[in-house]
Amino acid sequence: MIKAGIIGATGYAGEELIRLLVNHPETDLIYLSSHSYTGSDLSEIYPNFRGILDKKLVNMTAEEMSDECDVIFFALPHGLASDQISGKLLDKVKIIDLGADFRLKDKDLYENWYKVRHSSPVLLEEAVYGLCELNRESIKSARLLANPGCYTTCSIISLAPLVDNNLINNSTILIDAKSGISGAGRSLNLPVHFAESNESFKAYGIGTHRHTPEIEQELSQIAGEKIILSFTPHLLPMSRGILITAYAELTEEIDKEALIKLYSNYYKDDNFIRIYPSGSLPETRYVKNSNFLDIGLELDSRTNRVIVVGAVDNLIKGAAGQAIQNMNLMFNLDETLGLKTVPSIL
Amino acid sequence: MIKAGIIGATGYAGEELIRLLVNHPETDLIYLSSHSYTGSDLSEIYPNFRGILDKKLVNMTAEEMSDECDVIFFALPHGLASDQISGKLLDKVKIIDLGADFRLKDKDLYENWYKVRHSSPVLLEEAVYGLCELNRESIKSARLLANPGCYTTCSIISLAPLVDNNLINNSTILIDAKSGISGAGRSLNLPVHFAESNESFKAYGIGTHRHTPEIEQELSQIAGEKIILSFTPHLLPMSRGILITAYAELTEEIDKEALIKLYSNYYKDDNFIRIYPSGSLPETRYVKNSNFLDIGLELDSRTNRVIVVGAVDNLIKGAAGQAIQNMNLMFNLDETLGLKTVPSIL
Amino acid sequence: MIKAGIIGATGYAGEELIRLLVNHPETDLIYLSSHSYTGSDLSEIYPNFRGILDKKLVNMTAEEMSDECDVIFFALPHGLASDQISGKLLDKVKIIDLGADFRLKDKDLYENWYKVRHSSPVLLEEAVYGLCELNRESIKSARLLANPGCYTTCSIISLAPLVDNNLINNSTILIDAKSGISGAGRSLNLPVHFAESNESFKAYGIGTHRHTPEIEQELSQIAGEKIILSFTPHLLPMSRGILITAYAELTEEIDKEALIKLYSNYYKDDNFIRIYPSGSLPETRYVKNSNFLDIGLELDSRTNRVIVVGAVDNLIKGAAGQAIQNMNLMFNLDETLGLKTVPSIL
Amino acid sequence: MIKAGIIGATGYAGEELIRLLVNHPETDLIYLSSHSYTGSDLSEIYPNFRGILDKKLVNMTAEEMSDECDVIFFALPHGLASDQISGKLLDKVKIIDLGADFRLKDKDLYENWYKVRHSSPVLLEEAVYGLCELNRESIKSARLLANPGCYTTCSIISLAPLVDNNLINNSTILIDAKSGISGAGRSLNLPVHFAESNESFKAYGIGTHRHTPEIEQELSQIAGEKIILSFTPHLLPMSRGILITAYAELTEEIDKEALIKLYSNYYKDDNFIRIYPSGSLPETRYVKNSNFLDIGLELDSRTNRVIVVGAVDNLIKGAAGQAIQNMNLMFNLDETLGLKTVPSIL
Repeated sequence: MIKAGIIGATGYAGEELIRLLVNHPETDLIYLSSHSYTGSDLSEIYPNFRGILDKKLVNMTAEEMSDECDVIFFALPHGLASDQISGKLLDKVKIIDLGADFRLKDKDLYENWYKVRHSSPVLLEEAVYGLCELNRESIKSARLLANPGCYTTCSIISLAPLVDNNLINNSTILIDAKSGISGAGRSLNLPVHFAESNESFKAYGIGTHRHTPEIEQELSQIAGEKIILSFTPHLLPMSRGILITAYAELTEEIDKEALIKLYSNYYKDDNFIRIYPSGSLPETRYVKNSNFLDIGLELDSRTNRVIVVGAVDNLIKGAAGQAIQNMNLMFNLDETLGLKTVPSIL
Repeated sequence: MIKAGIIGATGYAGEELIRLLVNHPETDLIYLSSHSYTGSDLSEIYPNFRGILDKKLVNMTAEEMSDECDVIFFALPHGLASDQISGKLLDKVKIIDLGADFRLKDKDLYENWYKVRHSSPVLLEEAVYGLCELNRESIKSARLLANPGCYTTCSIISLAPLVDNNLINNSTILIDAKSGISGAGRSLNLPVHFAESNESFKAYGIGTHRHTPEIEQELSQIAGEKIILSFTPHLLPMSRGILITAYAELTEEIDKEALIKLYSNYYKDDNFIRIYPSGSLPETRYVKNSNFLDIGLELDSRTNRVIVVGAVDNLIKGAAGQAIQNMNLMFNLDETLGLKTVPSIL
Repeated sequence: MIKAGIIGATGYAGEELIRLLVNHPETDLIYLSSHSYTGSDLSEIYPNFRGILDKKLVNMTAEEMSDECDVIFFALPHGLASDQISGKLLDKVKIIDLGADFRLKDKDLYENWYKVRHSSPVLLEEAVYGLCELNRESIKSARLLANPGCYTTCSIISLAPLVDNNLINNSTILIDAKSGISGAGRSLNLPVHFAESNESFKAYGIGTHRHTPEIEQELSQIAGEKIILSFTPHLLPMSRGILITAYAELTEEIDKEALIKLYSNYYKDDNFIRIYPSGSLPETRYVKNSNFLDIGLELDSRTNRVIVVGAVDNLIKGAAGQAIQNMNLMFNLDETLGLKTVPSIL
Repeated sequence: MIKAGIIGATGYAGEELIRLLVNHPETDLIYLSSHSYTGSDLSEIYPNFRGILDKKLVNMTAEEMSDECDVIFFALPHGLASDQISGKLLDKVKIIDLGADFRLKDKDLYENWYKVRHSSPVLLEEAVYGLCELNRESIKSARLLANPGCYTTCSIISLAPLVDNNLINNSTILIDAKSGISGAGRSLNLPVHFAESNESFKAYGIGTHRHTPEIEQELSQIAGEKIILSFTPHLLPMSRGILITAYAELTEEIDKEALIKLYSNYYKDDNFIRIYPSGSLPETRYVKNSNFLDIGLELDSRTNRVIVVGAVDNLIKGAAGQAIQNMNLMFNLDETLGLKTVPSIL
């Protein structure tokens, strides 16, 4: 059994990690650390766990957990994980960071977009970017795993086959992304107060969202050239789910069936990627409460553009589910272990 | 492995049955019958199953399934299951009926409330009412299982300890019930058209809802006297979940801690019933996507009334989950098999 | 033109007051006071007013407004209005208090339920309870108007005809109430964070909600005897609207048509009360964004109970709309002035 | 007083027309025609009108209404209005068509996109496209008014200043549009059944939505060259509101303040167009229940793209409100008459 600890256990990503790990056959949850709720029972904060997991929330550092744990998940706001992570720590325990601190390889890029100083830049090179489908082999031997962002997971996987096959003009990539409100986390603030977000829709962070450089970094690497793209996030009046609509100009003619086949081949070994047949498109409910990432494809011959629609559950494949998929790889387990729930369409 | 068939596989209860049985370790889904979608792939109708269960929908009767199946689930509107079920069929296969045909023991009562003639009244006596927590032993040997309604499950279990212990004046029982819209099923009609039900709330079927006699039948049996009660259903602008608020006058003084203890004892062997500590109350999200039924208790000394709040997921403990719990009992399996998902609070 | 000021202009009741008064033909909004947003433009806080009302938010007391205003609306949490209101102030300006400070006639009752000391108990007698339909004449000459609560408005008007005509056993009255989330106001707290309240339903404050003594006070006065009743509020996952389902035992036989006629007569001079024909029931969307209060009636002969369903928009007839209806009466205007918007069913 | 009739009165656009016209000071609603509900009272179908407008629904043609009406609104699915409209009819009565039949000037274009034969192509030239802000003078003298689509209104007005000033490369225009579900109308079908659309999000009609040629026609006319663009609609899990996010490459450098000023000037005489200050963006709730169209602007210097965010209430400025704005112009009334409601942000 893998002994696991979670730091930041009472945020939404933390809660989902617990929810999934409770039923993971090869994991024991040893420690749940929560700065805000130290000393409370988990079921006081999250009554869904009543009778399922009786555990007190503690206030512990990774260092304090490291002797008893095989893996520690960080689910903290950016800037807080890197403070605790060092080479010495990695000698003792594997780290999976659901936050942003180790996703960008370039320290300056990180500091520019996140407006904080990075506390452990020496580890940036070692950290492995945990997009399982594109990086499986490196993940298997990783000690420090940077779990991708929710928007980024959906965007990169939706666009990789086009970029990798030189099918599009990379300077024309445009991602119009929409997320459910759980993506904004559990911290109270007016824009996600029920009465301020219910029955409404808006764009935010146009051109400035921090997932932009992450998408660009990974697609650039696939392309072998620097890609700059437009990324516009929006807030949906619902709890879970991300859908992105990505656009790009085609560099050559391709018909829809061929394109679907190309995508299906590209992801033929990936259990969690589902490519839709012609005429069907993903909806966020088709992946809700699951680790699937669904992709649909359209061609618009009038404008010579390809349109890719990708959907994920932001809390599962976009966060906790992918973290567990990474853990499975890092511990040589079946990649799908503990992640086989069927999407709950209703 | 239990070989299972489902008749009425593409209604919401049917879909949830499939979703849960796909991950049930002791069941093989052999046949999915759907009158409306015969010949289609399941994933065309419910894309959440894409890549998980590749199965064609058939149009088969229970008789036709009976040679190959160990159990057949009916998930049909009332009146349609009883047409297909006979003593001869029960000699070959176990039947779990999620519909209403075999819930009421009194044929006349059924015909009065449902306004149809009953096609197999001879089987009413044999049918076992499948409220697992109250009827476990009879269920184990049942051949024909009448799976309770969603409102009824929540109402009976929430009130049984009070009735059984003569703590309330039974003539004062009043159940104010609220259900998410999935309870209305998948048939198109104006009141559950999105724009007609979103952001609104209403009562319906006051004094005439068909779950009323079912609740009365079971509580009367527990009480050993005929109980007539008020039942008022309401429609919530959300997909899943039932919450009932039940009221009754106390016949004797009892303090809240004692009452909570009495409930906890009453259900001490029941994995899926959770009694809340003083000061806490269930919310539908605490049971969402799970087989739990949560109960909270309040006393109002000003009016000498006890108030019971019960919550279930109408599609799981109120339908498909309870059906599987019954199947587990009928096949001598661990009652919780395939039902251990943690409620998804978000 | 009536010169009006609002204290507490940026809470939801305040915002609705502004929204309605902007189109009131006999009112000029002179001052909008907001402690939290002093110095900001109204349209920075509420962009819906952009281009409609260009006004800076000020920080002023009623005393400071009183020389220039004919009426001042208070829309503050309880305890804050009574601090500012004195007999001397009332000599200069009429006051309409949307808060709770002057609703209960009994200072001790107020202090028991609200857990604060009352700052101006001498004004309790003078204050007029502003339920227009039941108290029209006193309102016309009021200087200090206590605007009723949202739940209370709906509950009292729904039950008054029964109580007034001795048709029910008053000790059996039970009100099961449900409110949209805007009723919880604009202050940030976890239970009304979007992801914590969306797609869920719960009861709260059972037996302890502060609107209970207010309902009891008014119904007791109508009955000529002390009434104690059960009141249970619930939180609906939607923004606007209250629906109450009230129950009581009948003291005499009456048929539904006669009951509907009795209600229609009782409110025959009241433009905003609509009694539904037999077989129809109110839904919150039928009153949304309007000052209407709709009532539907059912009899349950099996239990000898009458069930009354009442619906209001909590922010209009339950707060700002009723305040303006009161203002119209206090200034001898047509009671419906500025309140003729048709409910927006969608 | 203008005597008005509505054909198609019980669809959502029809209902909104009634709701707005009831409070229009210069209009009398003479006839409400509804094929589906002939003979019913309006308040049976739409109980929000109870006590406000007591009117029987009739089944009448425009011809039959024409002697008594000054204006007839058509709110029918495409193909049905053109059947009833002729030059002879227009000699007697003004027509405002909320449907699509007279929006496209090119009969072949119409027949290609709508897959039906046009019944009155001779009137296409006479019909005036009723986008008030861009076409005010022609509207004033129109006999036959083609009221624009919801998406189109929002898209054209959001992009016109850029196109008109040659600020963008027209071949790079891309509109990612999102609409609330009321836009799908009142006809029952599975995708807008509550449980199938709640808490989910999807794209539809990519590259094939019928509003595409309408947007292209109007922007091409402004540009003086043929524009082909990408238009992708999505369905939001909420009732009302459209938000579009439009993208294009800039042809010259411009700073954000200058751009905002240019937009403000372009629409300086238009009461219903609101341009947001730098750093603020529209949300659909800021225009809900109003005739406003709000526009926010962003520049992305990294990609040299301008991003325009536009928001309307699809049923008001996107349908019934704009139709009344057109009526006001056609009858020489103040353009804003009956349309001054403040957006209901909650």
